[in-house]
Amino acid sequence: MTTGPHPIRGEADIIERFLRPLTNASAGSYGLADDCATLTPTPGKDLVLKTDPIAEGVHFFADDPADAIGWKALAVNVSDLAAKGATPRGYLMALSFPATPDPLWLAAFCSGLADAQAAFGIGLLGGDTDRRPGPLSVSITVIGEVPSGQMVRRATAQPGDLLYCSGTIGDAGLGFQLRQDPAARAVSASERADLIDRWHRPRPRLALAAALLAHARAAMDVSDGFVKDLERMCGAAGVGATVSAAAVPLSAVAARLVAGEASVLTQLLTAGEDYEVLAAVSPATAGAFERDARAAGVSVSRVGRITVGPGVTVTDRAGAPMVFARTGWDHF
Amino acid sequence: MTTGPHPIRGEADIIERFLRPLTNASAGSYGLADDCATLTPTPGKDLVLKTDPIAEGVHFFADDPADAIGWKALAVNVSDLAAKGATPRGYLMALSFPATPDPLWLAAFCSGLADAQAAFGIGLLGGDTDRRPGPLSVSITVIGEVPSGQMVRRATAQPGDLLYCSGTIGDAGLGFQLRQDPAARAVSASERADLIDRWHRPRPRLALAAALLAHARAAMDVSDGFVKDLERMCGAAGVGATVSAAAVPLSAVAARLVAGEASVLTQLLTAGEDYEVLAAVSPATAGAFERDARAAGVSVSRVGRITVGPGVTVTDRAGAPMVFARTGWDHF
Repeated sequence: MTTGPHPIRGEADIIERFLRPLTNASAGSYGLADDCATLTPTPGKDLVLKTDPIAEGVHFFADDPADAIGWKALAVNVSDLAAKGATPRGYLMALSFPATPDPLWLAAFCSGLADAQAAFGIGLLGGDTDRRPGPLSVSITVIGEVPSGQMVRRATAQPGDLLYCSGTIGDAGLGFQLRQDPAARAVSASERADLIDRWHRPRPRLALAAALLAHARAAMDVSDGFVKDLERMCGAAGVGATVSAAAVPLSAVAARLVAGEASVLTQLLTAGEDYEVLAAVSPATAGAFERDARAAGVSVSRVGRITVGPGVTVTDRAGAPMVFARTGWDHF
Repeated sequence: MTTGPHPIRGEADIIERFLRPLTNASAGSYGLADDCATLTPTPGKDLVLKTDPIAEGVHFFADDPADAIGWKALAVNVSDLAAKGATPRGYLMALSFPATPDPLWLAAFCSGLADAQAAFGIGLLGGDTDRRPGPLSVSITVIGEVPSGQMVRRATAQPGDLLYCSGTIGDAGLGFQLRQDPAARAVSASERADLIDRWHRPRPRLALAAALLAHARAAMDVSDGFVKDLERMCGAAGVGATVSAAAVPLSAVAARLVAGEASVLTQLLTAGEDYEVLAAVSPATAGAFERDARAAGVSVSRVGRITVGPGVTVTDRAGAPMVFARTGWDHF
């Protein structure tokens, strides 16, 4: 006869059994037994700060694998650091549970977080745990560093810059769709699993951070939709952009679906949750950027160019501007 | 004919009209138009980090004044910094709304935040706004600084240290009770208003931070209940404490209520949300601590002493140990 883990008894029990191991015994976490955490900054660096909470029913489903929820909660925050050329240093996490969590669920959630921490080279510094009605929510604040004054900005693209995109666009959106309706697209079982994994476990492009820091004029991560986020990058700089849809990088399965039904392309360009990087790079440094990205093992595709603008134009294979009823995700 | 403010149109509208002014145009906030914020640390300082979210139905009521909710969201976080001897530098805020907020509500909420910011000497650095089912929630992460290696710890109290408490204990708990039932206690209308204000608008003891940094061996803020938090401070250090209940500082109205009904004292000592500071101070530096606290305009009361322990004993006026069915707030 086997027995399950002991039920959870109070906030202190959650901290001691589940959260304390995530600190990796780092000095500044004080074993989660102090009111605050400390972080000793590296001389000559600026801190880069981001908070992006995720909640059940909005960013994940209640029956998603708990380890994927843990991974995603940290990954969506680290993705922003990567796009800014920053190196992660640590994170804080506020957990809100609608009821005392199941210890098996919490153990799996923490194992996903532990995997993400290891992949991103950081540990838990501190946080808070409470109980409240409503969806389970995970609010992470991540802290990174860049050489002082050198964060890669969003608002600094210039007309004439080349526009690059990392990885592939639209797979997470397909995964989200297939997560809700497994028959929504004509894909094999293993393709479906891979696409859903893209939605469950975003891979922040940390390996690209050094190339961005060295060579990009502006960058941001693609989280709310390729077109919407490009519009944001251009709007912040008061510039525009032209993009050739045919140049936007697609996975083999996404390209096959587009070949079968052209309208799928609109979905891919506006679905969001890609957690890829959009970067504006001066033609003078584009060669070095491509070389460093290649050396880092990250594929980057040249998708278009920054223009005087205003406005973003995406042209289809026939050279005609595409029209988007919505360009991406908006919470309101 | 007058018209109200324009309804809110999308996330960008919330940021531009309501949140951007809270940045005080600080360089590191990038007008909330970048993916991340930056902070340039002061050389020789450690960062002190805290996240403590508040949610409707748990930490405030839906019909509480919106400006009080804004104040409280920031104050509960800054209170931890104060107890650690830290100086606030800035904060991030993640807002989750169950529906598009009323612009009048949001304006009042932001005015409470603006008041708190001004009182604590900081501005908004960055954050996130989303919509999700469930209670309105405000997740703030505050960043402060202390001289490197000198954060006032929770776990470092030593037997023989004198135990101090700032301000008065239990008023916020009475305010919370009166907020739910105005007739719960025999108080005048103005006393009721003052007590509810103590619950609505905690005043972090930032003025005490320098004295704590200079003279305290250990400290923490009292947020979940005087007895519970003292037990935590002692437990973290593997020590105990004896406290004379008669020495715990009470406001005039709280003292009058206790004089009328002795059992009220138990409520005051366990209610929480005081946001006062508990500090363990060596007898060798106690005189200097008291002098500096006085110079800073913060009343501190000597309430007891750290012992070899283990355990916390609170004695009543007759010298008998008080028994607490619960020592404070636990979410689980």
